[in-house]
Amino acid sequence: MAEFVLKAGERLDDLQRGGLSIIQHPGRFCFGIDAVLLAEFARALPGEKVMDLCSGTGIIPILMTSRSAGAAYQALEVQAESADMAARSVLGNHLENLITVTCGDLKDVPTACNGRFDVVTVNPPYAKLPSGKANATDAKSIARHEVLCTLDDVLDCAARLLKSKGKLFICYRPTRLADLLCAMRERKLEPKRMRFVHPKKDSEPNIVLVEGIKDAASELRVLPPLVVYDDHQNYTAEIYRIYQGEA
Amino acid sequence: MAEFVLKAGERLDDLQRGGLSIIQHPGRFCFGIDAVLLAEFARALPGEKVMDLCSGTGIIPILMTSRSAGAAYQALEVQAESADMAARSVLGNHLENLITVTCGDLKDVPTACNGRFDVVTVNPPYAKLPSGKANATDAKSIARHEVLCTLDDVLDCAARLLKSKGKLFICYRPTRLADLLCAMRERKLEPKRMRFVHPKKDSEPNIVLVEGIKDAASELRVLPPLVVYDDHQNYTAEIYRIYQGEA
Repeated sequence: MAEFVLKAGERLDDLQRGGLSIIQHPGRFCFGIDAVLLAEFARALPGEKVMDLCSGTGIIPILMTSRSAGAAYQALEVQAESADMAARSVLGNHLENLITVTCGDLKDVPTACNGRFDVVTVNPPYAKLPSGKANATDAKSIARHEVLCTLDDVLDCAARLLKSKGKLFICYRPTRLADLLCAMRERKLEPKRMRFVHPKKDSEPNIVLVEGIKDAASELRVLPPLVVYDDHQNYTAEIYRIYQGEA
Repeated sequence: MAEFVLKAGERLDDLQRGGLSIIQHPGRFCFGIDAVLLAEFARALPGEKVMDLCSGTGIIPILMTSRSAGAAYQALEVQAESADMAARSVLGNHLENLITVTCGDLKDVPTACNGRFDVVTVNPPYAKLPSGKANATDAKSIARHEVLCTLDDVLDCAARLLKSKGKLFICYRPTRLADLLCAMRERKLEPKRMRFVHPKKDSEPNIVLVEGIKDAASELRVLPPLVVYDDHQNYTAEIYRIYQGEA
């Protein structure tokens, strides 16, 4: 029987997938649809080693275990409270043999880890730090803005952890797509597959999912648009399938 | 009364827009939907100087005169036969006061032209040269493959012709999007606006339209998908509007 140890202010959310749940704290950063879509966009094969950077409460590897079984996941999170929630969610879901949670800074990952991973997933802070926020230390600011790590930091870490032909799966804001693609290419993380997420079929995208392959040749496949809501404000059939882990 | 002087093998195509027509040769490269969409995606204000590179039969500036009136257009084309058709189309459409056609290589544009243009439009060859095609000299190969100019050549020329804050409008293949965005940024042609063109709403895009602004700050706006055909294989309403010059 799964047991989730909750602390004051936390809640247990049912992920609606194979009995998986996750511990979150409403006063801190809670995962959004971008994490669910990234976990679906990413793939890991049995036996592969996966590193999830900026892992937060561990939502990406927890969801990925249901679709990319047999891989070994590491979740790295810099904020102690979030890493602690992730570790308790892993235990509560009986995933301790699949997911290892570490609290630490991605800039400090030991060089002994270089070239040791087949897959890196990351849902990084999207926003450049607004002026006046330089000293923001609250959990939401750290999760959303480049307070503790920039895009360059994230990609530097991903590039050194991945083996040649290893895969990076990242979600980001379309407004920063040129930043992302150019920074990936600078690190030989060649963009190979990309999908834009549109709230409605006629709206501009607010999320982009990108797969890069280390040391690959240049040729990018852009997938059909992923539309979240239909004309009646309901989830589209594809989003329903993704939330249920069937896509 | 407009008079178009046609040579052997040529035909006169009605552009279905304000009486405009264009001379083409079925045995050479004829314009496609990408040119029509680029001419709609691009904008020039009255009094602005526009350079169309890789102009072919002059389709881009000829179409743009109907929507971006009052600008002064130059059309540069390296193939003499195409430039000649463009010049005769300009005369036939009575656009000789708006469009000047020049036959020449974009790598040889005089440095005196540097920084003199507000807008550059270009529908360049998309394909890297396949091995064995290095000596291809037929008109279609030159228009489609990087026989006489590469993407770098095109962007080098655009970057030097544009004044600061001048605008580049280019259409390209999504498979080479990372090449395009990174090469633009290297030349300070910052990608600012982008739209993917999908044959159907659920298909991968086969054209991407990109606007870059010289010396601009980085922030990219990705527009809603532009879908060409509806579920009944008819043009969508937006494509109809664009073809009629009403979008």
